[in-house]
Amino acid sequence: MTEPRRWVTAADLGLLTDRYELSMLQAYWASGMRANATFSLYFRKMPGARRFMLACGQRYAAQLITQLRYPKAAIDELSRLGDFQDAFLRWLEDFRFTGDILAMPEGTPVFPQEPLLEVTGPIAEVQLLETILMNLVHLETVLASKAVRMVIAAAGRPVVDFGMRRMHGIDAAVHGVRAYRTAGIAGTSHVLAGLHFGLPVSGTMAHSYIQVHDDESAAFKAYADLYPGTTLLVDTYDSLAAVDRIVALHRGFGKAFEIGAIRLDSGDLAALSLEARKRLDAAGLHDVRIFASGGLDEHKIASLVAAKAPIDAFGVGTALGTSADAPSLDLVYKLTTYDGIPRLKNSPGKQIYPGAKQVFRFRSPTGVYEFDEVTLRDERRDAEPLLVPIVSGGTPLPSATPDAATAASYAKTQIDSLPPPLRAIDPGGAQYDVRISRAVHDLRASATSRLQHC
Amino acid sequence: MTEPRRWVTAADLGLLTDRYELSMLQAYWASGMRANATFSLYFRKMPGARRFMLACGQRYAAQLITQLRYPKAAIDELSRLGDFQDAFLRWLEDFRFTGDILAMPEGTPVFPQEPLLEVTGPIAEVQLLETILMNLVHLETVLASKAVRMVIAAAGRPVVDFGMRRMHGIDAAVHGVRAYRTAGIAGTSHVLAGLHFGLPVSGTMAHSYIQVHDDESAAFKAYADLYPGTTLLVDTYDSLAAVDRIVALHRGFGKAFEIGAIRLDSGDLAALSLEARKRLDAAGLHDVRIFASGGLDEHKIASLVAAKAPIDAFGVGTALGTSADAPSLDLVYKLTTYDGIPRLKNSPGKQIYPGAKQVFRFRSPTGVYEFDEVTLRDERRDAEPLLVPIVSGGTPLPSATPDAATAASYAKTQIDSLPPPLRAIDPGGAQYDVRISRAVHDLRASATSRLQHC
Repeated sequence: MTEPRRWVTAADLGLLTDRYELSMLQAYWASGMRANATFSLYFRKMPGARRFMLACGQRYAAQLITQLRYPKAAIDELSRLGDFQDAFLRWLEDFRFTGDILAMPEGTPVFPQEPLLEVTGPIAEVQLLETILMNLVHLETVLASKAVRMVIAAAGRPVVDFGMRRMHGIDAAVHGVRAYRTAGIAGTSHVLAGLHFGLPVSGTMAHSYIQVHDDESAAFKAYADLYPGTTLLVDTYDSLAAVDRIVALHRGFGKAFEIGAIRLDSGDLAALSLEARKRLDAAGLHDVRIFASGGLDEHKIASLVAAKAPIDAFGVGTALGTSADAPSLDLVYKLTTYDGIPRLKNSPGKQIYPGAKQVFRFRSPTGVYEFDEVTLRDERRDAEPLLVPIVSGGTPLPSATPDAATAASYAKTQIDSLPPPLRAIDPGGAQYDVRISRAVHDLRASATSRLQHC
Repeated sequence: MTEPRRWVTAADLGLLTDRYELSMLQAYWASGMRANATFSLYFRKMPGARRFMLACGQRYAAQLITQLRYPKAAIDELSRLGDFQDAFLRWLEDFRFTGDILAMPEGTPVFPQEPLLEVTGPIAEVQLLETILMNLVHLETVLASKAVRMVIAAAGRPVVDFGMRRMHGIDAAVHGVRAYRTAGIAGTSHVLAGLHFGLPVSGTMAHSYIQVHDDESAAFKAYADLYPGTTLLVDTYDSLAAVDRIVALHRGFGKAFEIGAIRLDSGDLAALSLEARKRLDAAGLHDVRIFASGGLDEHKIASLVAAKAPIDAFGVGTALGTSADAPSLDLVYKLTTYDGIPRLKNSPGKQIYPGAKQVFRFRSPTGVYEFDEVTLRDERRDAEPLLVPIVSGGTPLPSATPDAATAASYAKTQIDSLPPPLRAIDPGGAQYDVRISRAVHDLRASATSRLQHC
């Protein structure tokens, strides 16, 4: 028999990491290297057709890692690796993060080279957080950044998540919904996630429900009897024939057959929605809405909207849930200072700007983003600083993580403030202007020169 | 403040679902529909450049869903949705799956239209399993099918997983490693997953470890002192200069500086590995292996192998961990019979072959796959039947889930038995021959005809 499933809880946080983080931790411990380091979480390239990413998960992750401990069971697991000294493992029992974290608010549009989170603290602690912080922030940022494209394409119509079945595992299906909420997704089919994150839990029926009834009309009537105001799936056999059946049921039963919507799930959704709308309206069913699903992505949604298809809401699954065109972001977590000295690396294509940083966002008088400037942490500008303290001395600050409604409305305001070309589904060559301050450039030049003299 | 993180355990299994599964469950309960149904888990199209998928997770998932229950806390959660009657929720407290499951062995190459798992039981129970079964099997099958491409490309050299940081959440990073193990991945950097699934947990050092030392040689020496036989990362500043430093340390310290490998992580890996090998060999360091990583995928691995780059092992991250070129599979779970009557649907592009099925694999006398035939369950062929009972009356059969070593060696044998063109990284037009039996075609024709006379 195979091993049982491994359910993961907060007690496992210290094992949710790459082995090398722990190897380096022991090396720092063994050599007594305890000076402060700053690491910066950012990405280098915009993936797919994105012209902005929606930073999500960074405050949630920061809050979580303040709970990272090594309980006895975790220590026992680690001892199985064989590389760790007993004295180190005893020291690990008292491990907790004692440093500081700054981060952008969740729902902030973010661009290449901009830190969305920075951690400062004793080198060993700050290094250890790398893998888990990246995993948590990567998931939410990738999914939120895809979701916002769907929301923009739908131009005000609700977009509902149906993707759980093909998301990458259970955690993605749970915490992806947190990212969707920030990005403006209107609901989810996923029961646990919707209940936990306060997003409406929506659901209709599957084709199988129709199939097990000998007659489609009987299936429709039974479902509407149990769930007045429900949504009926019409494409099991023939979408328009099913609409005619619904009209006939309405004629036959009147108020005893009350539905809220139909769902089209295949075929030419523009043509079918037009004809279905016509038939529903002709029967006086003006209030019955049309819901569309079936392999939708932001491009298909945008073309249905452009074609003025009378679709009231969209259900999206796999393209959203896997961020199909750009399933990853080249998020990195890089050391930029240690012991007060700026640090860099020179690997081809992977150069680092040294120093703890701040990001300033400059806006036009009407609030539209004009450009950003990445500066050293202690530089001042007459603009909005995006990195804000959220963890101090290992303790989350009370105001650090906004409630759900705040994050979603903040994100909406920010997205609405982007230069319009950046919001396009096919943005062409549009690029946001991110400037690197003179002081950052100078620090890199002096650090590079120091390195060459070593 | 935001809600705390939602750690998920076995007690949550009944909530890890789409709402419509529960709505249909109540509808079946309310109408007394309790006849048996068969659902089939399969996919319609091969994604990306795949010419086979490696079926993984289906037996693990089947075993897990026999534990699906609705404890009091889950019932309380569900009652918040408002749609469920008290009597139904009380009935749900006693829910358990009582049906039968057949599945292919994990690690079986599988092709479009072939059920990799079939469930038979009372309609309400069997419907309920849809979302969670799909989520679990989709994850492992997608990741294993990508992993096997990396393993094939590496042509016998070990491939190690470094991808945790950019996989989609924690569950993917844990259970993905289970799929990797079946697919022949040699190790993982992920501590918890490697320990749990018995895959070697590997790790070296990050650039930051080099950066915090004022001198690269000092960093190398300190790490090798603590971890004799370790792997040193050489590309922080200049890969070949770092190799020269290693050679100098070897000359200076002899046996007091013992390393096992170097890791190249950027630049022209073919050229760098050749030159590094030359310099290591010239210094007598023939046993120091060369490990390569940095944005690798199966194509880059294959071209390094073709160029005869002296690389001994490959580390792969994001391309593997997100199955970057094909992050999803159009896996579906479809009703094919209910109450003894074959069922189908006619949605454009989504037709179903009705009836419970079996898959037979025909092989040449030397064991190479020749073709498969999808038949009705009770048809007989002189060939290997791939669907085997693994759950009976809701109870997992003892022999159903093989141990780790068995699954990995079974998968290797199966992959080695594929027609060679299907194993190519760029398979061109190669396609495996999957036949649908005459009896299945006839059943579809008669079911379609019955439908048209309704």
